[in-house]
Amino acid sequence: MVEEYLHRIRHKGLRDRVVSADQAASLIKDGMVLGMSGFTRSGEAKAVPLALAERARREPLKVTLMTGASLGNDLDKILNDAHVTSRRMPFMSDPSLRRSINAGEVMYIDQHLSETVEQLRTGQLPGVDIAIVEAAAITETGGIVPTTSVGNSASFAILADKVIVEINLNQSEQLEGLHDIYIPTYWPVRTPIPVVTPESRAGFPYIPIPPEKIAAIVLSNKLDSSSTVTEPDDGTRAIAGNLTEFLKNEVARGRMPASLHPLQAGIGSIANAVMHGFIDSPFHDLTMYSEVLQDSTFDLMDAGKMVFASGSSITLSEPKYAEVMGRFQDYKRKLVLRPQEISNHPEVVRRLGIIAINTALEFDIYGNVNSTHVMGTNMMNGIGGSGDFARNAYLSVFVTKSIAKDGRISSVVPMVSHVDHTEHDVDILVTEQGLADLRGLAPRERAQLIIRNCVAPEWRDGLQDYFDRAVARGGHTPHLLEEALSWHDRLRRTGTMKPE
Amino acid sequence: MVEEYLHRIRHKGLRDRVVSADQAASLIKDGMVLGMSGFTRSGEAKAVPLALAERARREPLKVTLMTGASLGNDLDKILNDAHVTSRRMPFMSDPSLRRSINAGEVMYIDQHLSETVEQLRTGQLPGVDIAIVEAAAITETGGIVPTTSVGNSASFAILADKVIVEINLNQSEQLEGLHDIYIPTYWPVRTPIPVVTPESRAGFPYIPIPPEKIAAIVLSNKLDSSSTVTEPDDGTRAIAGNLTEFLKNEVARGRMPASLHPLQAGIGSIANAVMHGFIDSPFHDLTMYSEVLQDSTFDLMDAGKMVFASGSSITLSEPKYAEVMGRFQDYKRKLVLRPQEISNHPEVVRRLGIIAINTALEFDIYGNVNSTHVMGTNMMNGIGGSGDFARNAYLSVFVTKSIAKDGRISSVVPMVSHVDHTEHDVDILVTEQGLADLRGLAPRERAQLIIRNCVAPEWRDGLQDYFDRAVARGGHTPHLLEEALSWHDRLRRTGTMKPE
Repeated sequence: MVEEYLHRIRHKGLRDRVVSADQAASLIKDGMVLGMSGFTRSGEAKAVPLALAERARREPLKVTLMTGASLGNDLDKILNDAHVTSRRMPFMSDPSLRRSINAGEVMYIDQHLSETVEQLRTGQLPGVDIAIVEAAAITETGGIVPTTSVGNSASFAILADKVIVEINLNQSEQLEGLHDIYIPTYWPVRTPIPVVTPESRAGFPYIPIPPEKIAAIVLSNKLDSSSTVTEPDDGTRAIAGNLTEFLKNEVARGRMPASLHPLQAGIGSIANAVMHGFIDSPFHDLTMYSEVLQDSTFDLMDAGKMVFASGSSITLSEPKYAEVMGRFQDYKRKLVLRPQEISNHPEVVRRLGIIAINTALEFDIYGNVNSTHVMGTNMMNGIGGSGDFARNAYLSVFVTKSIAKDGRISSVVPMVSHVDHTEHDVDILVTEQGLADLRGLAPRERAQLIIRNCVAPEWRDGLQDYFDRAVARGGHTPHLLEEALSWHDRLRRTGTMKPE
Repeated sequence: MVEEYLHRIRHKGLRDRVVSADQAASLIKDGMVLGMSGFTRSGEAKAVPLALAERARREPLKVTLMTGASLGNDLDKILNDAHVTSRRMPFMSDPSLRRSINAGEVMYIDQHLSETVEQLRTGQLPGVDIAIVEAAAITETGGIVPTTSVGNSASFAILADKVIVEINLNQSEQLEGLHDIYIPTYWPVRTPIPVVTPESRAGFPYIPIPPEKIAAIVLSNKLDSSSTVTEPDDGTRAIAGNLTEFLKNEVARGRMPASLHPLQAGIGSIANAVMHGFIDSPFHDLTMYSEVLQDSTFDLMDAGKMVFASGSSITLSEPKYAEVMGRFQDYKRKLVLRPQEISNHPEVVRRLGIIAINTALEFDIYGNVNSTHVMGTNMMNGIGGSGDFARNAYLSVFVTKSIAKDGRISSVVPMVSHVDHTEHDVDILVTEQGLADLRGLAPRERAQLIIRNCVAPEWRDGLQDYFDRAVARGGHTPHLLEEALSWHDRLRRTGTMKPE
C-alpha cells in the first residue's frame, strides 16, 4: 500500500500528513467556509465531503460551501441531505440541493464563474477557512497537481488557512503537465493576463502553495461521475444545422476564417449537438477556449477538425473517459486546463474574440435571455459562465428548442420572467425553427426577426399579436406591462401557456 | 485669415483640402453610415452636421449616425428634426430624438459604449462611409489631434473610407498631447492592452491615419455646449454621505487603501454630488478611470484630493471651462483622454479594480437595475458605459433617490420593468435612505436588506407585503408574476404607483 501512493507525494516532508478522511474532516468546524475542488462534476474532492456528511449525523455542522461549479458523485445531494450546506456558491446542478434552495433553506449565491475568487481575494466574501482539493500528485516543492478540473481550486488553496489534499489514486498520473495555473497579480499595479491564444501557457503546472499549509492528505479512489450524453435528435440537429449554415455564411462574407474563432460551448444536449455538427462542416483547425471539455471536443479532435482546446475541466461519458485516458499522451499536447477565473476571464474572452454558444431557458421577442429561473422564481442551476462569455464574446449565441414540455411552453415569450443576459449581450438566437441575427438591430426590428425565424408556428400569431398591440401603444421597446408576464402566469395556473 | 489656421494644419499637403462646410457635407450621400466625433456633448463635429441638416431641406437625405455618445449644440435635435437620422447608435440624450425613437421613427441601437467599434472593425456592423471628426490640429504626418473628447473618433477615422476633419479654431491648441490613442491589435493574435494604471500611456497623441484619407477640412469655431451643473440638494448629499461612510468603513476594514481604487462616475446630479462629497472625505490621492471628466474632477484636483484622471471626454460648466482652459498646463499632466473602447474596456476595468458609481432609473428588491427604459418601454438615454463598468468593476455601485415625481413613484419596485444590470452585476445600492451591501447575499437576503435600507418609508410596507406573499409561494427569487409589474401598470393608468 505504501509504495502505491508514496511516489504521488514527492515532497517527503508531507508524507506523514496522510490521515483518514474522518481525521481530515475533523479539521472542519461548524460555521466554516470551505473551498472545494470540482467543476461540472469532475475533479471534486470525494472522500472528505462524505466523511463530513457522516459526521453531521452526530453533531450540528453547517458550512458555507464554495466550489468551482457542480459536484459529481452526488456530493451536493449528500451534503444537502445531511443539512451540512447552509450557503452555496457559485454554481450547482443537483435536484435535491435545488429543492432546498428554492424552499429558501439554503442560501445560494449565483455568480459569474470568473468572479468568485476575485471577490474572495479582495476580502469581499468571507474568507476560506479550509480548501479541500483533489490531486493527482504533490510535487517536490509541495505543489498540488489537480486532476480533471482546476475550477477555483488554486485560489481556494492559496487563500485558505489550511488545505486538505485528496490524492485520488484512480486519477491518472499522466494528468500532470496538463494544467496551467496562472493567478492574476495584485494591486496597486496588476499586469495583463499573458494569455493571447488558446494554447498560451503562463503559469505553473501545479498549484503553488507553501507545503506547511497542507494540513492533511487523504487517499481516495472514487472515479469522477461520468456525463450522460444525450444523442442528438431532430430538434438539436436542426439547431446545429441552422448555426452551421450561419457560420458558413459569415466565413463566406469574409468576417472570419474557416478556422472560425475559438469556440466556447455550454453544457447540455443542444450545445453537444452543435459541437458535433462541426464534424461534418467545412470548418477546420478549430480551437476551443471554453469551460468544459466534453465528448464532442475529443470527437472533433479525432475527426481532425480541432487542433487545440483550453478549458477548466474535462467531463466525459464513461466510454469516452476510458478511450481518452487510454491514449492520453496523444491528446495532452492539444489540451490545457486553467483556473476558471482565467478560462472565463473577460479580458481573455474579449481578446481572443470567442464564439460563445450557450443554452437559454427562454428568451423574449427583444432578445433578453433567461438562463436560470423557471417562471422567474425557481432556480434551475445558475448562470455559470454564460455571462462571462456572452458579454465579452466576439459572437454571443444562445440556443434553445422553441417549445418545451410537449408544446405546453413556448421558449420565446413576450417578456422573459428573469433576465440573465440583456439584449445588449445577445447577438444570435437559434432554435430548430431558424436563426435570428440581431446585430445592429433596434428592438422593434429584433422582435420581427425573432418572431419570424425562431418561434414555433403555433405560438407565432400570439407573439405577433402581443407585439402589434404593444407597438400601437408605442415605445422604443414596446410592451404591455399588464400582459407581459401573463404567459408565465397562465402556465403557473393552468399548466400551459396556451390561452384558456 | 490664412495665418490664423495654417499652423493648425501642419501637414502642408493637406492645406488645399480646406473647403466650406457645405462642400464637405456634399460628400455625404443618402443612405451612408457616418461616424462622428462627440462624447457627452463635447468635441463633436459642429459645422458639417449643420450643413447636412440644411441640405436635407432640399433633398431626401437619411443616414445612419454613429457617435461616441451624446452630441452637444443640439445637433441630435437638429439632425432629427431635419429627418436626417434614420438609425442612431450607441447613445443619445436629446429629447427630440428620444421622442422619435420611442415613436419607432428612428431605429436606435443602444450599446455598451466599449463595443461599437469592436463590432465595426470585425464587419459585424455596416461599415462607416465617412468619419467627421473635430480636431484641434493636424500634425505633420496627417495625424488628427482630437479636442475635448476622443469617443469613437479614432476607430471611425481609421475604418472609414473618407474622413472630414473640422478644425475648431476655438478649441485650445494646448489640447495637443492630452490624448492617448491606442487601438487594440487584430486577430489572429491580439496582445494585451498595455494600460495598467490610470496614468498609463500606450498610444499616439493623435489619430494616426494616412493623410490621403482626409477628403475635406472644414474650419469651425463653435464652442462645446456647457454642462448644467445641478447643485447638490439634501437628497443627493445624503446619498453621497451614505456612500462615503460605506467606503470609509471598507478602508477601516483593510479592504482598500485610503486612496481607494480608481473611480468611475456616471453623469448627472447624483454622481456629481457623490464626487463632490469626496472633497470633505478623509480619502486622498484619488484617481479616476472614467468616461467623462466633469467639474467635480477638477474641483477634487483643486482641493488636492485627486492626483490623476483618465477619461474619454471633458464636459464642463461654462465657468469651469474658462477656469480649466485658463490654466490648462497645470492640469494637463494629471489628465489623459482615451478612445472609449479603452476608457471602458472590460480588460482594463477589471484589471484596475474600479469603483463604478452609476445612476439607476429604478431597481428592484432583488438588486436588478433598470438604467434605460421608463416603464419598461420608453427609452430615456441609453445604457452608455454603465454596463462596461458595472460588470467588471471591483465594486459596482448604483445610486438613485428612493422616490421620483413628487413621491408618486418609488424607485424601488417589486420587479424592474427592464433589466440593464442583473443582480449578478450589482454590489451596492444607495439611496438617500441608506445603503444595501449585497455582496455574498442570496436573493431573499438582498430583498430584506434593500427594503429595510433603501426604500422610502411610505413604500416600505408595500414592498415587504409583496415580498412576504411571494416568499409564501416559494422560490429562490420569490415573485408573484401576476403582480410583479403591477406598480408600473398602476402608474401608467393612474399617474402614481400608489394603490387605488
